[in-house]
Amino acid sequence: MSDEIQTPAVMIDLDVVRTNIARFQSFADRHGLTVRPHIKTHKLPQVAELQLEAGAIGITCQKVSEALSMVEGSDRIKDVLITYNIIGDEKLSRLVELADRVSLSVVADSVAVVDGLSAAFAGRPKPLRVLVECNTGADRCGVSSPDAAAALASHIAASAGLAFGGLMTYPPVGGQLQVQQFMGEVKALIEADGLSVGSITTGGTPDMMTADLNPVATEYRPGTYVYNDRSLVARGVCSWEDCALTVLATVVSVPAANRAIIDAGSKALTSDLLGLTGYGHVLGRDDITIDQLSEEHGRLVSDGPIGLKVGQTVRIVPNHACVVTNMTDFVHVVSASRGLEVWPVVARGKVL
Amino acid sequence: MSDEIQTPAVMIDLDVVRTNIARFQSFADRHGLTVRPHIKTHKLPQVAELQLEAGAIGITCQKVSEALSMVEGSDRIKDVLITYNIIGDEKLSRLVELADRVSLSVVADSVAVVDGLSAAFAGRPKPLRVLVECNTGADRCGVSSPDAAAALASHIAASAGLAFGGLMTYPPVGGQLQVQQFMGEVKALIEADGLSVGSITTGGTPDMMTADLNPVATEYRPGTYVYNDRSLVARGVCSWEDCALTVLATVVSVPAANRAIIDAGSKALTSDLLGLTGYGHVLGRDDITIDQLSEEHGRLVSDGPIGLKVGQTVRIVPNHACVVTNMTDFVHVVSASRGLEVWPVVARGKVL
Repeated sequence: MSDEIQTPAVMIDLDVVRTNIARFQSFADRHGLTVRPHIKTHKLPQVAELQLEAGAIGITCQKVSEALSMVEGSDRIKDVLITYNIIGDEKLSRLVELADRVSLSVVADSVAVVDGLSAAFAGRPKPLRVLVECNTGADRCGVSSPDAAAALASHIAASAGLAFGGLMTYPPVGGQLQVQQFMGEVKALIEADGLSVGSITTGGTPDMMTADLNPVATEYRPGTYVYNDRSLVARGVCSWEDCALTVLATVVSVPAANRAIIDAGSKALTSDLLGLTGYGHVLGRDDITIDQLSEEHGRLVSDGPIGLKVGQTVRIVPNHACVVTNMTDFVHVVSASRGLEVWPVVARGKVL
Repeated sequence: MSDEIQTPAVMIDLDVVRTNIARFQSFADRHGLTVRPHIKTHKLPQVAELQLEAGAIGITCQKVSEALSMVEGSDRIKDVLITYNIIGDEKLSRLVELADRVSLSVVADSVAVVDGLSAAFAGRPKPLRVLVECNTGADRCGVSSPDAAAALASHIAASAGLAFGGLMTYPPVGGQLQVQQFMGEVKALIEADGLSVGSITTGGTPDMMTADLNPVATEYRPGTYVYNDRSLVARGVCSWEDCALTVLATVVSVPAANRAIIDAGSKALTSDLLGLTGYGHVLGRDDITIDQLSEEHGRLVSDGPIGLKVGQTVRIVPNHACVVTNMTDFVHVVSASRGLEVWPVVARGKVL
């Protein structure tokens, strides 16, 4: 089969995808958490459908244009959360367009963002649900204190065209304690104001199997879990067999006894290290390090003989699956029941 | 103007591009070197035309499909060198297609690659020019010794459908001495065999202004010089004013006094570090470090007050321009004479 596939190629094992989806859905069901997968990892309406079929209540997107292309690709996507501050007339007008098509929620972490949303949605028949993004230690976006979160919730509730929808966080890895404490405090403050807190949504694949340490949360947004990757194997979260996304590459040169060059470089594997050494794992070859990438070349080195021939293919688990998805216009999808299919990555490279 | 552009956006200053092209062409003309720019940096037929107008004798591509899309985009591209080992029936058949359209050369660093090329081109009216790729210290592809290079040159010359076209290297930065020595030795060996060495082609923007240290070379293949980037500023090769490619980003959150979040993450800037600290330079703000990227977020931190507001735009010089080009389906091109235009990046994301 590999002979028909032009390398470098992103390969998706759909049977592994199904198993990965079922595993977390079952955990979440046991613990009373709703699941709202982040589609940034796959950007494929077909995989979103598998997640919804398994029990997810909707999807998470980072961009409005990502969401629109997902919705255009599947009429079964009816509930979307955008976990991003949406700013600017053009993006807000697309957000309005999206709100006409699905049950929509979005986040905000400042008055400026809330006021922009309000201006776009005021006077519309259905208010836009807005969640307050909270910084529980990842120090990316998010209001920095429970008081500030409660104040922003009140501002949302008082804004024309908007409804306060709850709390969202992108937590630091291992940050369950901070999430529980921050969200618990905000919830108490907001309820003391007479508002009810809808969803409390948290995420992150590395900590998903201990999500029960956050009883305050109502929803989980895993992303990478659908494919897994080398960073998650390194964390002990999964094994190589659980990695659904691999990059198939061809050996194009064996210029030294311990070195080979493959046609997967940073255009396929990306330079994301996520704290690891090397740019991916060659399946079946623990002795090999991918120690250098240029755009179209990956360098494989071994302490011993490299034992590869020009023209031979290798399969690589990348450090970070999500970013690999964005590099390619299409993926090769394999399953026992359907064989090999080529799917366009419809939500790739979106800007708006 | 920035108000009309949806961020994150890749911006190209065409006037700076013209200046960058003219600067190296003039140097090369003075030193009797032909110029064959590597189009991986821009992937735009329009920019290739500017390079050809300035005096380049042709273009360099890394992939056959890149070259085909460039040629389809401009009938002024008539001479192409593919600096990659082309392997496999599908890629070889595209190579034949390309050979019908332009004057074509390709490289090889092994008998296996040469034999594949010969099988594809044997019996065709015009032989394919094949250059021997030499490893002059970058330890990527390339034959490892002058003897091996000379032997491969003889093999090419004796192969049906092929003509020996010369020597190619992708040298290490600062590797002029190695290039001169390796190429000089190979040339002597090959000429002693009664073969003539056509082009001797080397490249790399960091060392291009000292290309005269390699009198053995006949041709230079600069890539990044057309745009420049933060890595080249850090090496002292150019200044910020010479950087033609910038990423325009919007501040989406200012969650702390010394921190802001922009909508350009690794999907726009990429994770390429090239030995630098941080993921790009915010123009006009030497105090800011872009210390963390996720796909859609870039984190800006300052020792002092960050002094940015939600909705404000910033312009960033990325660490590595070439990889940014591959992230985006289109670029925003600005010039004094033509204003703002949007150009599709036609050679982006090519596989074959």
